[in-house]
Amino acid sequence: MSAQNVRVGVIGCGMIGTDHVGTLSTAVSGARVVVVTDADPQRAGNAAELAGGARIQPDPLALINDDELDAVLIASSEATHEEFVLACLEAGKPVLCEKPLATTTEACLRVVEAEVALGRRLVQVGYMRRFDPSYGEMKRVLDSGRIGEALMLRCVHRNAEYPPFYKSSAVVTASGVHDIDAARWLLGQEIVAATVHTPRSSGLVREDFQDPQFVVLQTEGGVIVDVELFVNARYGYDVRAELVGESGTVSLMPPATATLRIDGMDGQPIGADARPRFAPAFRAELQAWVNAAAAGGAVGANAWDGYAAAAVAEACLQAAETGTTAPVKLADKPALYTDKAQES
Amino acid sequence: MSAQNVRVGVIGCGMIGTDHVGTLSTAVSGARVVVVTDADPQRAGNAAELAGGARIQPDPLALINDDELDAVLIASSEATHEEFVLACLEAGKPVLCEKPLATTTEACLRVVEAEVALGRRLVQVGYMRRFDPSYGEMKRVLDSGRIGEALMLRCVHRNAEYPPFYKSSAVVTASGVHDIDAARWLLGQEIVAATVHTPRSSGLVREDFQDPQFVVLQTEGGVIVDVELFVNARYGYDVRAELVGESGTVSLMPPATATLRIDGMDGQPIGADARPRFAPAFRAELQAWVNAAAAGGAVGANAWDGYAAAAVAEACLQAAETGTTAPVKLADKPALYTDKAQES
Amino acid sequence: MSAQNVRVGVIGCGMIGTDHVGTLSTAVSGARVVVVTDADPQRAGNAAELAGGARIQPDPLALINDDELDAVLIASSEATHEEFVLACLEAGKPVLCEKPLATTTEACLRVVEAEVALGRRLVQVGYMRRFDPSYGEMKRVLDSGRIGEALMLRCVHRNAEYPPFYKSSAVVTASGVHDIDAARWLLGQEIVAATVHTPRSSGLVREDFQDPQFVVLQTEGGVIVDVELFVNARYGYDVRAELVGESGTVSLMPPATATLRIDGMDGQPIGADARPRFAPAFRAELQAWVNAAAAGGAVGANAWDGYAAAAVAEACLQAAETGTTAPVKLADKPALYTDKAQES
Amino acid sequence: MSAQNVRVGVIGCGMIGTDHVGTLSTAVSGARVVVVTDADPQRAGNAAELAGGARIQPDPLALINDDELDAVLIASSEATHEEFVLACLEAGKPVLCEKPLATTTEACLRVVEAEVALGRRLVQVGYMRRFDPSYGEMKRVLDSGRIGEALMLRCVHRNAEYPPFYKSSAVVTASGVHDIDAARWLLGQEIVAATVHTPRSSGLVREDFQDPQFVVLQTEGGVIVDVELFVNARYGYDVRAELVGESGTVSLMPPATATLRIDGMDGQPIGADARPRFAPAFRAELQAWVNAAAAGGAVGANAWDGYAAAAVAEACLQAAETGTTAPVKLADKPALYTDKAQES
Repeated sequence: MSAQNVRVGVIGCGMIGTDHVGTLSTAVSGARVVVVTDADPQRAGNAAELAGGARIQPDPLALINDDELDAVLIASSEATHEEFVLACLEAGKPVLCEKPLATTTEACLRVVEAEVALGRRLVQVGYMRRFDPSYGEMKRVLDSGRIGEALMLRCVHRNAEYPPFYKSSAVVTASGVHDIDAARWLLGQEIVAATVHTPRSSGLVREDFQDPQFVVLQTEGGVIVDVELFVNARYGYDVRAELVGESGTVSLMPPATATLRIDGMDGQPIGADARPRFAPAFRAELQAWVNAAAAGGAVGANAWDGYAAAAVAEACLQAAETGTTAPVKLADKPALYTDKAQES
Repeated sequence: MSAQNVRVGVIGCGMIGTDHVGTLSTAVSGARVVVVTDADPQRAGNAAELAGGARIQPDPLALINDDELDAVLIASSEATHEEFVLACLEAGKPVLCEKPLATTTEACLRVVEAEVALGRRLVQVGYMRRFDPSYGEMKRVLDSGRIGEALMLRCVHRNAEYPPFYKSSAVVTASGVHDIDAARWLLGQEIVAATVHTPRSSGLVREDFQDPQFVVLQTEGGVIVDVELFVNARYGYDVRAELVGESGTVSLMPPATATLRIDGMDGQPIGADARPRFAPAFRAELQAWVNAAAAGGAVGANAWDGYAAAAVAEACLQAAETGTTAPVKLADKPALYTDKAQES
Repeated sequence: MSAQNVRVGVIGCGMIGTDHVGTLSTAVSGARVVVVTDADPQRAGNAAELAGGARIQPDPLALINDDELDAVLIASSEATHEEFVLACLEAGKPVLCEKPLATTTEACLRVVEAEVALGRRLVQVGYMRRFDPSYGEMKRVLDSGRIGEALMLRCVHRNAEYPPFYKSSAVVTASGVHDIDAARWLLGQEIVAATVHTPRSSGLVREDFQDPQFVVLQTEGGVIVDVELFVNARYGYDVRAELVGESGTVSLMPPATATLRIDGMDGQPIGADARPRFAPAFRAELQAWVNAAAAGGAVGANAWDGYAAAAVAEACLQAAETGTTAPVKLADKPALYTDKAQES
Repeated sequence: MSAQNVRVGVIGCGMIGTDHVGTLSTAVSGARVVVVTDADPQRAGNAAELAGGARIQPDPLALINDDELDAVLIASSEATHEEFVLACLEAGKPVLCEKPLATTTEACLRVVEAEVALGRRLVQVGYMRRFDPSYGEMKRVLDSGRIGEALMLRCVHRNAEYPPFYKSSAVVTASGVHDIDAARWLLGQEIVAATVHTPRSSGLVREDFQDPQFVVLQTEGGVIVDVELFVNARYGYDVRAELVGESGTVSLMPPATATLRIDGMDGQPIGADARPRFAPAFRAELQAWVNAAAAGGAVGANAWDGYAAAAVAEACLQAAETGTTAPVKLADKPALYTDKAQES
């Protein structure tokens, strides 16, 4: 760990960006948020204050190229991701980009190609589940061989509610991509085909909104991954998974802290959104990123992972539309992403 | 409750038949096993003794037509079911037939037609989950409206191991039919289509045996039912389900009786087969059957249910073979099975 | 199992007595309730009807001496237990007496002495936890040696609410005796001393009522048993226990059948009283009693157990009054209760 | 949060001290370990390296008075605590001292008096449970009023094993003090009396070592706190508690991350020692201390808390020796510890 703090600039001070500023400033070792930007000056001001007095830089590209900055965190709107990540690559700065890496598979591939051209990894995509203690334990159990080879991965992804203006496709592209990335990472395999089963939709959502959706993925190694996506589940935010091996299974344990026995029930409170569920994951992700950035690199989901998740999500949309199984088409994987020496 | 015991004859004294003799003789009110039959005289003898001294009748058809018998329980090999059930209908005797009702959809339909011709319900099929306390609670929660309308039913059916000579199709026809029946009963809807996803098979099973299999069913009301069938799961016998409603979910609780903290683990023992898991269900099923038989009728899964389960299983086999979604084709439902007056 | 039903007479058709009539008539093999008695003719009539047409006998002693009766179940008020049990002994009839065996330790001892004079066991006391599947599993685990020798037994006994007219002493004598009997049975040891710690009382109970109470017992083998008795716990009926052994522990699992995820909670419903919690225990107790009665004997808690529980409860009352540890004084144990040949 | 890192010196680089160096250096915001000391040069060297290159100062008192140091963490042997804490007070430096504050109640009181003389709070005692997410949730639930007033607190404290050379008194003074502090903090009440019940000792420990021990405490408000202390429980490290309120209860959830279904068991792994169980608590404790130290103060357990825990532990030892209830005698509480303005 360097004695010098990593100087971080943050682009986008909405809910997620501001949460990250808070975490970097109060719960991560070796980092300091020194400059922030947001189209809304008040949000920028709040974040700057939360950081203990960061500068405000109105121009994101100027922020990226600021000489007194070591690393960039992108939490602005999805449409801006590609441009800002490419600018970071050009500036040679480690960057943590919230998912998605870019809004289309093609755009993701452009980032991959830019990074490959640069020849070293700087990009990290904000798939925080890779840093969640329960997902980590699931992977350790699988890798230990205790449950044999993976055969199926059973996933549940429920949100209490979803922005009312979202389209049905966002259920996969904004929520399901987390499960897609987690599956690829856990299994260490690419996904090659997708099917989407469409249940009757909840009567509690907009008529033209399809919720839940049930996605079935197949990996190159033949593992079947099923993902229940239900983003207006009402009762709470609930992410679960069971990995089925040849001789045993391992399931996530959501991080409940207390059991209540009250009013004829014996149970655990469930949070309303991702923050309590993944608070330890967000902190660990940011700490790992800061550590890697201090060494000039990146960890976690890389640009290729961001691209692959987008490609799988695209196949899901196609499968949903056609009612058949859709293949996932990936470009050839560049050596940069298979070279273990590039891993932090 | 009649003061008179229902006099039961049991056909087939293998493991299941003998278990039933024991339960009827020691844990069910108002019944007495008075005669048993089995191709193997020793098995018949054991069962007769277990019943506290039942007669042994070598001929199953003679048993069915025995005047000193009120009701018949069929637990003989699958191939014999159709003949014996039809004989019971002809003799006008209440009959509990272990699943399947018959070995083909057509044969099941012949039983349905015979019962319809008779004009009253005598046949009960041994889908015991309908009597399981946890399935019962799931249905009560759904019917109460507390979780809104059903949208998905997520099922897991794992056996520790499976007879080594079974074919892959038996995973659906012998195991999966329980989940098919439970889904139809819970949801009160017919299943109209089936898809089967085939993961890589466990390396711990015979090469030409496909295990696990992942079945996705659609009901007439648009509910999606997914069923993980994994019959060599090794770690134990494990049947689970979560019913996903519009505003909440309800899950089965397997009947664990104790928590052990030992050797670095905090957990519950899992049984090796269906008996500990479904012991309360088997007892309740037999008690309900005896009660209904005392009144000359039947409860639980009827002949139509036995037929419909067979038709859905057949669609699953077709879907697995073709790799596409297969429709379930059902005959018109006779009024006998929609007439509430026939329900006990 | 006899082909003949055991003919049972029931004394006392309050809630518990009527529940037992129902269980004996609908869920127990080999029994028939043939005569009932209650001071209230309407309650007697209801029970008689529930039994499928039992006779009503206004005089309990006449019922006991009825020649067309094989066994007697006593569920009348506590003050009547001694007289009726002694009458059953005189009549030579197996008797299941709800706890307590009698209202004082001395009275219990008189029953013991009468049974000893008779020379064979006819009396069973209704400590149903001995037949509860979870207590049974706890005992099996202990007896298996898997967790080493027992060192402590940690008990929780909570009722949702308690009759408003009860005295504080009833918390031990009416509720705590179940835990006292369970501890003696599980550990196979007599209790030799009792201490009672008195917390501040709940503000939700009558001012002169002490609730909760915290009892600490010591066995002859040095095991410490602590029992939280809290009979106005409001949230539900909750009986728990953890047995702490030298190398592991085993805890009861209450018989929950479903998990609900609803309204920000993930949990299991808790029943309001003992009936859902101990339904399987009540049924098993009655079945075991009927089986033993058919053979002319008794199982479960015997008269000595009833006496010992009363003596321990008395020591608790003394300890609570004096604020010190009170010894439990027991008479010499008659050979009748140490003779394994008398055990069914 | 200051832009400047708090410069920390660490006294004692054994297991706990080294863990703290690691946490401060890799997981806490705004801190830097700049100097370490240990009697063993190799341990000091390891810790210095873990800190990313801290200085080694052989003399602990010189470390405390080092001008380039903002705060001191004491993790040296218990016998040194008093001297080093007093030196920190003299130097005017915030200090986090691992428990116990000092080896005797009198010595703790001397620290209290020195801090009172100084007139401001600098001392924090390492009772990390106050920062544990599950204890925090328990306190929030109690303070919310959802379960009514606290009546009982049921505690379990099990270690897998214990240093073989420890005396029986250490079970209370080294382990039980954590439960004592947690109870005082949760309930916001002083403990006024202690009783110790002594079960038969485990056959797996040294003959002259008493394990388990069962402690019953009473607070000034009449709450009864029972604590099972069992430090050779073998199966794992297990800290549990249930707080019983007038209308409900709240229990700790140990931070399990995964459920395994394997080998006939369905359960969660239990760690072997306090580190996995309390890792989030240790991190939060250090972060809170660093934040408070940056402002020149302290949070969490103060010197009075350290003194009171020692006094209660002393009463427990006396109670164990005499076999009676022992009163807890506390000095008058100085205003410094009742002044809310001193709380960070």
